[in-house]
Amino acid sequence: VDTLKQGRLVERVVYRQTFVVRSYEVGPDKTATLDTFLNLFQETALNHVLISGLAGNGFGTTHEMIRNNLIWVVTRMQVQVERYPAWYIFHLLHRGNALEIDTWVGASGKNGMRRDWLVRDYKTGSILARATSTWVMMHKDTRRLSKMPDLVRAEISPWFLSRTAFIPEESCSKIEKLDNSNTRYIRSNLTPRHSDLDMNQHVNNVKYLTWMMESLPQNILESHHLVGITLEYRRECSKSDMVESLTHPE
Amino acid sequence: VDTLKQGRLVERVVYRQTFVVRSYEVGPDKTATLDTFLNLFQETALNHVLISGLAGNGFGTTHEMIRNNLIWVVTRMQVQVERYPAWYIFHLLHRGNALEIDTWVGASGKNGMRRDWLVRDYKTGSILARATSTWVMMHKDTRRLSKMPDLVRAEISPWFLSRTAFIPEESCSKIEKLDNSNTRYIRSNLTPRHSDLDMNQHVNNVKYLTWMMESLPQNILESHHLVGITLEYRRECSKSDMVESLTHPE
Repeated sequence: VDTLKQGRLVERVVYRQTFVVRSYEVGPDKTATLDTFLNLFQETALNHVLISGLAGNGFGTTHEMIRNNLIWVVTRMQVQVERYPAWYIFHLLHRGNALEIDTWVGASGKNGMRRDWLVRDYKTGSILARATSTWVMMHKDTRRLSKMPDLVRAEISPWFLSRTAFIPEESCSKIEKLDNSNTRYIRSNLTPRHSDLDMNQHVNNVKYLTWMMESLPQNILESHHLVGITLEYRRECSKSDMVESLTHPE
Repeated sequence: VDTLKQGRLVERVVYRQTFVVRSYEVGPDKTATLDTFLNLFQETALNHVLISGLAGNGFGTTHEMIRNNLIWVVTRMQVQVERYPAWYIFHLLHRGNALEIDTWVGASGKNGMRRDWLVRDYKTGSILARATSTWVMMHKDTRRLSKMPDLVRAEISPWFLSRTAFIPEESCSKIEKLDNSNTRYIRSNLTPRHSDLDMNQHVNNVKYLTWMMESLPQNILESHHLVGITLEYRRECSKSDMVESLTHPE
């Protein structure tokens, strides 16, 4: 049953998997949402850890991480979208709408790991999106960031590849703090849905994107599409938190 | 590339597709959510319409429906869950977590169509869930319900199968109206996220389930799991509506 075969390693350390965009992964305009990209990034990352034999029993955690009670948290993610794939009702027969996602990891400073993704149109090979992200370790109980233990580094570093999916522009590197004086749109009282939490018992990183998009006025959502985003994750959000989403057009 | 092969017809009119539960389709307890079942029900229904050659260019609409400017809307859905499949990080290697979903359609009164689903554990064949639903036609512009045109019936009736996934219990057949006097939990001011809308420009039927679950207190969500649900869809919800979710434990 080949439909269950998920992906494979190419070039020794790069994980590659194909996906068909599903009907519930597209927005009202019938193209995949950026949320879908981010979900598939998570999925390929976890499958990569799994196929590499590193996986313990958690959310992408390695055996040594589990021994140290550590989990992965993302601190930064940058995505550049060239084109959003459309949901064709014809994908089943024509196979016209499949994505091919490559993901690999690399070093990031002393205590971090970089993970990159490249999304291609399966048929034509043209690039749909590129992404890069930085991950660090958090202690599962204290919820404090942790140094990367040497034994964890020893586990993962054989998988490191010094290739980047894209070079972030300088202008994207600093995110200005928004407050009442420089904010055009505010969406307040956003509370996590139970379904926004993930296995690490906090709001999954993809949901922040959904919240960000929520504060945009409908007409902008309808007339524009996101070509790039830089996400910086500063603090965990748990079920009881209330969130505000602020937007300012430049 | 067999990973892109989606599903196939069995017994001439039954559509069968296998799925592997993805990391973002499970809740904090690492099992698939009912939302995931409902999403996969939609996906298999659309793929069924597609593989049957009936599909026009819309959300499961047939050629004749498009000619008449009609869309499908669900009026009722009943789901019985035997067991929620867990997300195993091992699914990739062990193939232990695949679902097999069968779906088929049947007659429902003069103007409706019944669609049923049966979800099995792919490996063991044991039944995980059963569902049945009723669909009618709505005019795309007037948003009023429509009779089923004879030509539409002629298109779809060759696919009808007089088999039901389950016989709904009598006690499930009537949903009592909740108001302030008989409601224990209320979650107000729920507003659709842009991403809650589907291609028919209204809130997708799956999102109502998410809202319903939202009004349940956290401790009930954590200590219980849903074994069955009857959903009755009375009216469309669009982007500008504000919704209240009321709950009363019996």
